[in-house]
Amino acid sequence: MAGTNSEKPLLAEGPAIILVHPQLGENIGMVARAMANFGLAELRLVSPRDGWPSEKARAAASRADHVIDGAKVYDTTREAVADLQFVYATTARDRDGFKEVRAPGVAADTLRARFRAGQPVGILFGRERTGLTNDEIALADEIVTFPVNPAFASLNLAQAVLLMSYEWMRSGLESLDAVPFQAPEQPPATKTHLHGLFDHIEEALDARGYFRPPEKKPKLVENLRAMLTRPGFSLTEIQVIRGVISSLDRFTRDAPRGSLAAHETVRRKPNEAAPHDE
Amino acid sequence: MAGTNSEKPLLAEGPAIILVHPQLGENIGMVARAMANFGLAELRLVSPRDGWPSEKARAAASRADHVIDGAKVYDTTREAVADLQFVYATTARDRDGFKEVRAPGVAADTLRARFRAGQPVGILFGRERTGLTNDEIALADEIVTFPVNPAFASLNLAQAVLLMSYEWMRSGLESLDAVPFQAPEQPPATKTHLHGLFDHIEEALDARGYFRPPEKKPKLVENLRAMLTRPGFSLTEIQVIRGVISSLDRFTRDAPRGSLAAHETVRRKPNEAAPHDE
Repeated sequence: MAGTNSEKPLLAEGPAIILVHPQLGENIGMVARAMANFGLAELRLVSPRDGWPSEKARAAASRADHVIDGAKVYDTTREAVADLQFVYATTARDRDGFKEVRAPGVAADTLRARFRAGQPVGILFGRERTGLTNDEIALADEIVTFPVNPAFASLNLAQAVLLMSYEWMRSGLESLDAVPFQAPEQPPATKTHLHGLFDHIEEALDARGYFRPPEKKPKLVENLRAMLTRPGFSLTEIQVIRGVISSLDRFTRDAPRGSLAAHETVRRKPNEAAPHDE
Repeated sequence: MAGTNSEKPLLAEGPAIILVHPQLGENIGMVARAMANFGLAELRLVSPRDGWPSEKARAAASRADHVIDGAKVYDTTREAVADLQFVYATTARDRDGFKEVRAPGVAADTLRARFRAGQPVGILFGRERTGLTNDEIALADEIVTFPVNPAFASLNLAQAVLLMSYEWMRSGLESLDAVPFQAPEQPPATKTHLHGLFDHIEEALDARGYFRPPEKKPKLVENLRAMLTRPGFSLTEIQVIRGVISSLDRFTRDAPRGSLAAHETVRRKPNEAAPHDE
């Protein structure tokens, strides 16, 4: 059914994904889902074995209905690439011939540059078990292949499309370190806050006779401060640590927070004499 | 069944892939296959819903039996990460908390550096629909997430493992342009061969009166040579082109190669008078 849907405008999200003689509707559906995950939408099918439309494809697409609905069907691979200006063929194994073989990242960068220059581009994927024939590869400009484990090289169709779609999304990121969300910024607290933590801990420990013998106190303080400085604690973290110190300092197992005994205890400041000592 | 297979040595290929409460055996099998594609082999399962071993997992693994056979089962996520020194949690959505969120390539580089330094490392993947709980994420050092299309962000379990496994393989490549095979090198031919092509074509065309009017010949030759120079033809390609020119030059539709007429014709050199003209 060449020409089906030919009235639809070319979707502009990226390269056309062209499946040559795909066999199972499920695989076409998983391809559509993988495309949608990474923002691709233009799916072309060259005479799918089990016909089209396919309810199995729609079910496996997990709501990537816009890709399924927009799919165009062609009789031949030649027709499916006719309007494109640059085409990659994917293949898992070496072929005779003189076409350049590219890594996925390089291929995605090439596609991105040509796409930005207004050239319609596409990527050919072969049938499930046997891939593309040499005649089909001859329709492409270059070859793209994946750096798979040579001992276990078979990627399935949806996985191959997923990796190329992922590389396409990656090629459009301003930074490869970019993530869609991030933990709240946790810049280190000011030294005033850090030194407040030092004072708090050191006072609480000193009150307990921690720094003994006295001549070792400078070295023990130095080590303690080094340990508290290295992580670059944020203000929030310092507040958490000070809460922990306060809890350890002001309450005991026998007089936990909220108990009557604790109530009596916390009315005193640290180092203050207990009421019965007054 | 914590401790099952605990007598097996740690496989040294890369990070442990840890599936937390996976539901379907098929998904575990597809994970094993994705791992094998990119050279990973150490699979850990935290109380898989449908038990272990799983024939469905083995079938879906498409011969990645070494991964299935080596899988270890744990009762809790805490036990599954106990021997590791650095752990990533994968998540598709923002979480409360202060853990660093990394892009997959950055996470893979970090894992690779730590792995090379001898640290056992791992990556946590959550249950199929709901991912990891906050308690499970708390067991990890950092978070990794994928730059997916926000409008269609759900990656399935095997796809998520595939992408991280791919990034792991990628992080170990000396060059990101590296490909496992390449077309034979096709360096440009020497200028001697290029000029031989010029002479051949120009002579054949001249004999046919192509360069007319004569005063335009220098410009026509210049254009022809520019067109033949730009592609940087290899010696093999020049030989192919010269074969094409020879065929067009020496045979005709009426006297094709192999015909008696052609036999008569080719005994003459170009520009030589035909026998009946002698």
